[in-house]
Parts: sequence; structure tokens; C-alpha cells
Amino acid sequence: MIEASIITIGDELLIGQVVDTNSAWIAQELNKIGVPVISRLAVGDNWEKIWNALDQESKASDIIIITGGLGPTADDITKPLLCEYFNGKLVSNVEVLQHVEDLFHNIFKRPVTDRNRNQALVPDCCTILFNSKGTAPGMLFHKQDKIFISLPGVPIEMKTIMTEKVIPLITDTYKLPHIAHRTLVTFGIGESMLADMLVEFESKIPNHIKLAYLPNHGIVRLRLSSNGINKKIIDDEIDALFSELKILVNQYLIADSDDPIEKIIGHLLLKNNQTVSTAESCTGGYIAHQITSIDGSSAYFLGSVVAYSNEIKESVLDVSHKTMENNGAVSEAVVREMAMGILNKTNSDYIIAVSGIMGPGAGTLEKPVGLVWIAVGNKKSILTKSFHFRFDRFKNIQLTTMNAFMMLRNFIISNTLE
Amino acid sequence: MIEASIITIGDELLIGQVVDTNSAWIAQELNKIGVPVISRLAVGDNWEKIWNALDQESKASDIIIITGGLGPTADDITKPLLCEYFNGKLVSNVEVLQHVEDLFHNIFKRPVTDRNRNQALVPDCCTILFNSKGTAPGMLFHKQDKIFISLPGVPIEMKTIMTEKVIPLITDTYKLPHIAHRTLVTFGIGESMLADMLVEFESKIPNHIKLAYLPNHGIVRLRLSSNGINKKIIDDEIDALFSELKILVNQYLIADSDDPIEKIIGHLLLKNNQTVSTAESCTGGYIAHQITSIDGSSAYFLGSVVAYSNEIKESVLDVSHKTMENNGAVSEAVVREMAMGILNKTNSDYIIAVSGIMGPGAGTLEKPVGLVWIAVGNKKSILTKSFHFRFDRFKNIQLTTMNAFMMLRNFIISNTLE
Repeated sequence: MIEASIITIGDELLIGQVVDTNSAWIAQELNKIGVPVISRLAVGDNWEKIWNALDQESKASDIIIITGGLGPTADDITKPLLCEYFNGKLVSNVEVLQHVEDLFHNIFKRPVTDRNRNQALVPDCCTILFNSKGTAPGMLFHKQDKIFISLPGVPIEMKTIMTEKVIPLITDTYKLPHIAHRTLVTFGIGESMLADMLVEFESKIPNHIKLAYLPNHGIVRLRLSSNGINKKIIDDEIDALFSELKILVNQYLIADSDDPIEKIIGHLLLKNNQTVSTAESCTGGYIAHQITSIDGSSAYFLGSVVAYSNEIKESVLDVSHKTMENNGAVSEAVVREMAMGILNKTNSDYIIAVSGIMGPGAGTLEKPVGLVWIAVGNKKSILTKSFHFRFDRFKNIQLTTMNAFMMLRNFIISNTLE
Repeated sequence: MIEASIITIGDELLIGQVVDTNSAWIAQELNKIGVPVISRLAVGDNWEKIWNALDQESKASDIIIITGGLGPTADDITKPLLCEYFNGKLVSNVEVLQHVEDLFHNIFKRPVTDRNRNQALVPDCCTILFNSKGTAPGMLFHKQDKIFISLPGVPIEMKTIMTEKVIPLITDTYKLPHIAHRTLVTFGIGESMLADMLVEFESKIPNHIKLAYLPNHGIVRLRLSSNGINKKIIDDEIDALFSELKILVNQYLIADSDDPIEKIIGHLLLKNNQTVSTAESCTGGYIAHQITSIDGSSAYFLGSVVAYSNEIKESVLDVSHKTMENNGAVSEAVVREMAMGILNKTNSDYIIAVSGIMGPGAGTLEKPVGLVWIAVGNKKSILTKSFHFRFDRFKNIQLTTMNAFMMLRNFIISNTLE
């Protein structure tokens, strides 16, 4: 089996200034073509540490993907280091130089400096992986039977070179096994109770198939993973187990794919040719943002009123001043009127409305941080429910959003069955 | 110098299903107390790989922080592995068992199962780091002069144990150097041009101080880092260099802290006792979400109308039907009327309005994917500008948001100076 390591380079990763999203994306793409990633290593802008990382990862893996440290500034040392590691010397590449000049003249519309032109200096011992989106070229090196691929750390540049150059290169070079994953989504049951339900199922899974539990925001994803040479055998075997698993967890099953919940709701609405809008207080636009993160959501999402201040709850959503005064903004009565208001304003088929206290400030004894009222509904009925989350601001916002989506999903399904 | 490694455990990290945010947070906290992280390694739920990772990282580092793999299910093997690695045996801990029972009875309100009770089995060779937020305790092991700390992967649990137990433990155990970082934010200049401006400055920085360039969304952060025993000497030296740096980049300087731009705008508004609201089309609530991600934003953020459909642009924001018909939704005329609409609805001091095409669908020859109109303004004047971003959906949304924030910042400053 061909295995890969990912090395990410940059002090910003080690002081925690930047969250590494590149590695997860690269790992996904490699897994799709049957190359498991066996380790991900982050090191700083430090000659010795990078050198050791190359030594170490190439002992274990066949393919070493390196990102970062290719910028034009003095803290970027990946290129000279790779040049020395593979016993090459830096030479100017005509094609890259032309590309750098073109980028600056036509796209960035800034004068090109010598520092930019130096991006066209590449080790003579590498194959260039052309970077159509930026100035730092990707580089391919060979050492014994291992391949090393160096990519810029800027996500859009890294992704473009991976897609256009690296993935085809790997599938051309190696005979790869088939990797199969099947993921389903459950809601309303804890990880350990799920595991108790699945003791017998787990005991009979063959060794080359793994079952993983991935809990997050009240949802637990179950993932079966397998790999082997014969695609049909692998797929048939995992599909049979997956069918069985779906039946076992049926009462908690939300989806039999790895889609996020906002996509699952989008599918439901598209299928019914229906629309949704939202009235948000404490989530501050996060629910609308999650819905619109899905391409094509304009087909079913009309809009949102983020009524963060009480005045806007009244002036835009027509919540009555008396209801506000009598109940306070975080109350069943107000969230119900917010729901009515957004229904009237947008004429959508379904709505979500939320009002709560996300923290860390603004909680009281009677209405503590974490108290949230959620409403979902349509013109015929509005369903409300209160929650009390115990986490930090962003996690409370995420949990509110997740629970609002779950309430909406169930509401849509029960209204569609009628 | 005491150095640390972070090992994260879980197949979900290697197939890219989960982005590792824990490592960045842990690295930040360790850096604050003077413990640099020299490597971050992610491995799967695999006995041999985890074992090797422990061997390898403890060769280089004094402190090894391990997260993940402590759940109650069969794929979680960290605890038995650590037990064997440190030659211990699993024994039930009375305090943890009581805590697990209490959590299930009082908080989760679910029956406690044997699987949950097994969370109270801990190696007899470790010190327990009590987990007030969940069932899996943190564990501290010693081997020769190294310390190993195992933490659950659930962020809120990991963070609580780190803050309450691990950080005090490390500062008590070691005499730590002082680490100093100074970060400033620039906008409107590329990384390489900045570097050209700073050639002379860089040449005279002493060896123990590093300058890093961190470009993201058109912003370049510059970070000076230093460390040493004497806090005063280190701070004075880096402060003097930082003052000099600020003067050198003054015309592009947005902030002399590492705050995100939405926090910088919040400070400005708070200082002036002013408010903002937004009218969003293509960003779908992301601008409001970014503003409200800051605790205390309710003091200056009134709300947002996310007018994703054209009907809501007209019905809620009072954009005239004729303007929509004559210009299309993505136009200067419409974004100007959206701006007027949200100003009238909310009476805020400042507004942001955006309309654009984020892709991948819906672009035309005349109005391609990436075209965005942004307006910022107040009751006296509205400023509009068009952009053409060339990236994927989410990056286009982020760039629109960033540029809207930069336009608003400059607008507020020029209006405050008047």
C-alpha cells in the first residue's frame, strides 16, 4: 500500500496563530484516490527541524507532501533547503519568470520587484508543478523510490496545484488500492449508548474494516472504512455492512451521507420546492451563513433578519413592545413573534427564529448565559423549545444553530408526511 | 529551554474529516508561558503509530501533550496504550467514577452505562487531571525527565483541563524563559513589497529575534518574536524594534495588535459611542456573524438584513423595483439603495451593504462570478466600490467581508477626523 505524510512548515503553525486547514483538505483528496495519510507533522521555519522531518517522514511514507515556506521573504527557507537536501542548485526558470511578470502586470497591477522575480529560481533537480494562481511554483523531487512534493501554503494555490498536477501524477505513478468510506449521521443519542447498541455489530466486522465514532455538537457520525484491491468486492462488502448499520441506528438516523446538516435541509427543501428564512438574535447571522455556505442555496433560502438590538426586533420584525417589556427578549413569547414577523416579511414556507444569551457577558440569575429559545414553523403552526447550553460563546452559537436545524428538519418531515 | 510537542490522535484527522483546531489553541497557551512548541504530529487510531510518536517526540521535547482517543468506544485506544507504555495497570478511580455518575444524573440526564463507568478506569502510574466538563480524565505521566499529558479531544474539555491543571503544573515544574511576540496588521501592500521596504530593518535584527510575514485576505501581519530569561530586557528590546517597525510601515498600518479586523472596528465604534448595521446579499450573514463573534458587540451592532432573494431586497430594504429591473441585483445602484434601506430601518450611525456573485454558479459574461459591489456610509454620504475576486465561494465571501470592513474602518476614521 502506498502511504503519504504531510509536512506543514511555518512558525505561525507552532505559535498557534494559524489553524492548519490545508492538511485536512490534502488528506481528503489523497484518501479519495486510495492513498492513506499516516502522519501529519507541523514544524517551524527552522532548517534542522525541516531537514529532520524530511528524513523521518520519508522513512515511513512513499509520498511526502510539504506545504509552506515558499514565500518571497527571509523567513521562507523551504526552497533553498530542498535544493540542498536533493543536491541541486537554484536556476532561473523562464516559464515561471514569465508567469510572475504576467501576474504582476495583468492581475496584481503592481510593479514586479527582484524579490518577486526570485520566485522563478528553482532547484535544477526538481520537476516544476506550475502554479497558475500565484508566484511560487510547486516542486517535485525524487529520492530512491520516494517522491517529495513541495507546495505553497496559500490554500487556493495549494489546492489548484494538487488538483491540476499532483493527483494526476500520483494516480499515473502508482497502482493504488480502492478506499471506501461510508458515513451516516445520528442525532439524539450519545456516543457510548450508540456503542452499546452496536456491540454485536462491531464484533463481527472483519479486521480490515474499521468503525469510527465522530461526535460533534450533539450529532454522532458513524464511519465505516475499508480498503483493498478489488473495488467491487470492497464496495459490496462495506455496502452490506452499511445497510445493516443503518437499520440498527434507524431511530436516530438523520442522513446516510457525510453531508453537513445545512445541506441535508437544502436537499429536503429543494425536493419539496419550498423555501426558508430566518430571524436571528443571539446567533448573529451564523444560521444564515451556514445555510448560504451551500452553493445553490439561493433556490430555497430567501433571507434573514438579524435583529441583534431590541429596537430592530420591534421595527423590522414587528415584535410588539408590550411583549418585549413583559417577557424580555429571551423568551418564548418574543421568539414566537419573531417567527411570525419573519413569516410575514418573507412569505417563505418555513422559518427559524432564535433568541438567547451566548455569553460570556449579559447573563442573569433568572436568564443565565446559555439560555436559548428556538422556534421553527410555517403559516399553520409554530413550534418552540428552550435550551440551556453550557459552553463558550462560539460553541453556544454552533449548538443553537445545530439544534435549530434539527428542529426544522423534523418539522419539515412531519409536515411533508401529512 | 523547555520545549513541547503536540500529538493529536484520531483517524478523522488523517482522512481529513476534521480540521484540527486544538493544536493551534494549545500552542498559543504554551507560548504565552514561555514554552515553544517545536512540532505538532497527527497520527491515526493505530497502536504502533501512536507508540512510535511517543518515542519520537519525547526524544526531542520535554513536554508531550497528547489529545484524542480517550472516548468510550472501541476505536479509542489511547488509554490502554499509555497504560502499557508506562508499565501501569488500569484501576478504577473513585473520584472520577462519582463524577461520571453525577454528570449523567444531573447534566446529561441519561442512564449511565458500564461503558461510561469504564471512563473511570485509569492507569495506576498516572496522576489524574480532573475533567470537570466531561467523563474522560486528563492524565499526567513521567518518564525519565520528560512529562506526558494526555487530554480528551473534545475542545471544551481539553481547554478546561489545560487552563485549570496543565498550565499551572508546567509553570510550577519548570523555570521558564520569557517569550515575547509583537504583531501589527497592514493592508494595501503585498508581502514582497513590504519585505523590500524592510530590508535594512531585517538586516539589523539580532539573531534571537525573528520577523515573520503572515499574509491573509489582502492583509499582511508582521510578527516580531523573541525569548530570553530577563523579561525586562526582552520586552524593552522587542518594543524598541516594534516602534521602529510601526514607523516604517506607517502608511499601511491598520493596527498594532494581533486583533482581527472586526475587533478593531468594534474598538473604533465603542470609542466613538457609535453603531453599525449591515445589509447583506452575497455574504449571506457572514459579515454579521463576524461582527457578533466578538463578545460585547451588542454595544455597537444593531443588526443585519440578509436580503438573499430579490423580493426581500425590495420588501424589507425598500430597494425600488425599477432600480432592480434596470440594473440587476449586483450593481452600484442596488447596493446604494440597500445601504439607504438599512440606514432608514435601523437608524445606525454607519452601515455596510454588499451585493455580488460568489459562485460557483450564477455568473454571466457581463457579471462574472466574483463581481461584488460594496457600500459603506452614514446619513451624510455613501461610498461604493466594485471588486472582482477570483477564488472559490467561501474565499470570495471572506474577501468581500474583509474589504467591506477595511472600507468601513477608513470611512469611520475619515468621518471622525472631520
